[in-house]
This record gives sequence, C-alpha cells and structure tokens, in this order.
Amino acid sequence: MTRKLEFWFEFGSTYSYLTAMRIADVAEAHGVPVTWRPFLLGPVFGAQGWNTSPFNIYKAKGEYMWRDMARRAERYGLPFRRLPESGPGAFPQNGLAAARMALVGIDEGWGEAFTRAVYAAEFAEGLDIADTNLLMRLTEKAGAQGDVLARAQAQANKDRLKANVDESFRLGIFGAPSFIVDGDLYWGDDRLEDALEAAGK
Amino acid sequence: MTRKLEFWFEFGSTYSYLTAMRIADVAEAHGVPVTWRPFLLGPVFGAQGWNTSPFNIYKAKGEYMWRDMARRAERYGLPFRRLPESGPGAFPQNGLAAARMALVGIDEGWGEAFTRAVYAAEFAEGLDIADTNLLMRLTEKAGAQGDVLARAQAQANKDRLKANVDESFRLGIFGAPSFIVDGDLYWGDDRLEDALEAAGK
Repeated sequence: MTRKLEFWFEFGSTYSYLTAMRIADVAEAHGVPVTWRPFLLGPVFGAQGWNTSPFNIYKAKGEYMWRDMARRAERYGLPFRRLPESGPGAFPQNGLAAARMALVGIDEGWGEAFTRAVYAAEFAEGLDIADTNLLMRLTEKAGAQGDVLARAQAQANKDRLKANVDESFRLGIFGAPSFIVDGDLYWGDDRLEDALEAAGK
Repeated sequence: MTRKLEFWFEFGSTYSYLTAMRIADVAEAHGVPVTWRPFLLGPVFGAQGWNTSPFNIYKAKGEYMWRDMARRAERYGLPFRRLPESGPGAFPQNGLAAARMALVGIDEGWGEAFTRAVYAAEFAEGLDIADTNLLMRLTEKAGAQGDVLARAQAQANKDRLKANVDESFRLGIFGAPSFIVDGDLYWGDDRLEDALEAAGK
C-alpha cells in the first residue's frame, strides 16, 4: 500500500530548493503522492537560541554548505548562485510572505508552480523573495487569479501558517527540507529517495 | 587520472562508523586509494562553543540522528545500537586513546582492521572504547605486536594526532566523517560516493 509523503519546506532554505525542483518527477516515478507543506524555520532556530541560519553562525559549516550546494545543483542540472552575506537578498532570505502565498496557492492549484518559481527567483537569479511585487508577478505566472495578497494576509491564513510551524515542532522537524512518511521523519534533500522508498513499501 | 581520497574519522562519531565499515569495498570498486586519517572532533566542537556533541545539545536533531542511523545501518546490513545518554559508554564516547593507537596501526599495517573493530565494539556491541584493556585486545586481534600502548602514548605520536587536528581546521573540516579529494571537502557518509566519483575523474 502506497502512503503519502509530506514535503516540508522553508523558502529561505538552500537545500529545499533542490528538492522543490525535483520532487514532482521523482515522486511520480515512485508512484507516491506528495503533500506540500510550507513552514518557517525561524521559530525552530529561535528555540535553539539562534537568530539566523546556523550556516551563518558556524562559518566552516556555512562555507561547506555553499560548496556542497553548488556541486549538488550541478549534479541535478539546476542553476545556482551563492547569496550575499549582507545587503538586499542576503542569506537567509525572509520567506514569510512567500510561505503565506504558497499556502493559498496549494489550496487553489497553483502552489507547486509558484513554489518552484520562488525558489528559482531566489537561488538561480539571486532576487529578494521578500519583495511583494516580485511575488505577485510569480503568483500570476503560476495561474493565480484575483486578490492573492488579501487572501494570503487574511488572519485565517496567517494562523494556518502558524499552525504548520507548531505542527513541525510536534513532528520533531529541526531543518528543511524534511519529509514525513507515516509519522516518520526524514531530513535533507539527500534523504528524499529513502523517504519515497519507505512510502512505496 | 585517479586521485587519492582522505577519509577523516573520529571514533566517537556515529556516521563515521557507517563509512569505516564500508569504505574499503566501495573505494576498491571505484579504484580509488584511501588514506585513513584519525582525528578528534572535541577541539572542533570546542571552537564553536560546544562541550559535547551537537546531537546532545540540540535534542530534536539528536533524536533524529539515532533514528536515521538505525535506518542507514539496516540499509547497509550493519548491526547498530543506540548508546546511553549517561553512564559508561554514553554518547559521545572518548576516542582519544583509540585514535592514538589507530595512528600507530595505520603506519604498521593493522590500522584499518583495528579501526573497524573499535567501531564495531562501540556501535554494534555498545562497549566503552575509552577502556584501554578493550583497545589492547582489539590491537592484538588486528595483528599488532609488541608494546602498542607505549608507541601510542609516545610524545611524538601524541603530537602527530594534534597535528591531524590542526590540519582538519585548515581543511575546513567541521564534522565526521569527512573526505578530502584534491583539497575539496565532502562531509558525511552520504557524500562518500560523490567524493569517490570526484577522485576517479
């Protein structure tokens, strides 16, 4: 019996970019349905006493991450650029507005295309995804209609994102991307295939 | 032209166990020669302000590590047990004595067998590898002769291990296992195949 896989992603996360761009194809090949779950890592990091990404706090680990990401992106045939350490578009970018829109889009059927477009803008083009004008253009391209911003900023939608963050804590999630299969946690783009295998069993 | 791969390992590291048990076969299949480099993560963690493994400091990450290790060990057909949080044999174990002996053994030709035996004692049997009597038995089984302890504790050998730790900092190493190919760093058992591919190119 095939089970579903939950894909938990944060828009500021480099490794989530790799998964967002490839999960639709890989999951289809495994015959596993995927639920896309946007959330925020800020509260998770905050609970560990960090006010930014651990890749910024721990320099050697951060340097390695950019090198590893470049190699992985090349392996997958994805364009990739290192984000600056400060100034506009600095890493980690603020994914709050994008996550709220993605929640709306996932309900309305344009969420996956929008999510891929946001990640490409961020990590292939180096644009700042906290820019609402950019995000609005990407929602339109993905097929959204009407006043997306109003729906994204409605209190009920903000609360849904908060609920996702609360649920991520309950699930033991501490980084992104993360995958949940039958309550079991898999962490990192390099565990996607393991998680899909488990879902297909 | 095939280049050599350096395998940097710490005896207290769970994921280093996975690599130590499989690297000889996988590297041979790739036709890549491997240099075994024991080192210590304590000074690396200390430089980041940690007095124990980050898996103990960050609880969610630690819980996940044990779950992930159990799954990975099963995938590789390796026995594995979770170490206790306190008391004899608690995680992370002190790998100093084992690392000094491994340095001697690598020179004398019994280092790889000894390293595998130490990891098996630790993570398959749950024994405490800070126990010198246990380590001496494992050196004998691995084929060591004469007074290994004296050679391991000689000042020159202690200094060599310190030099390895210094070199690990220069190489940007921040965790274990790590692999170096032509100065380029790969981190984690799940990057072994990537590193071997790079070495074989």
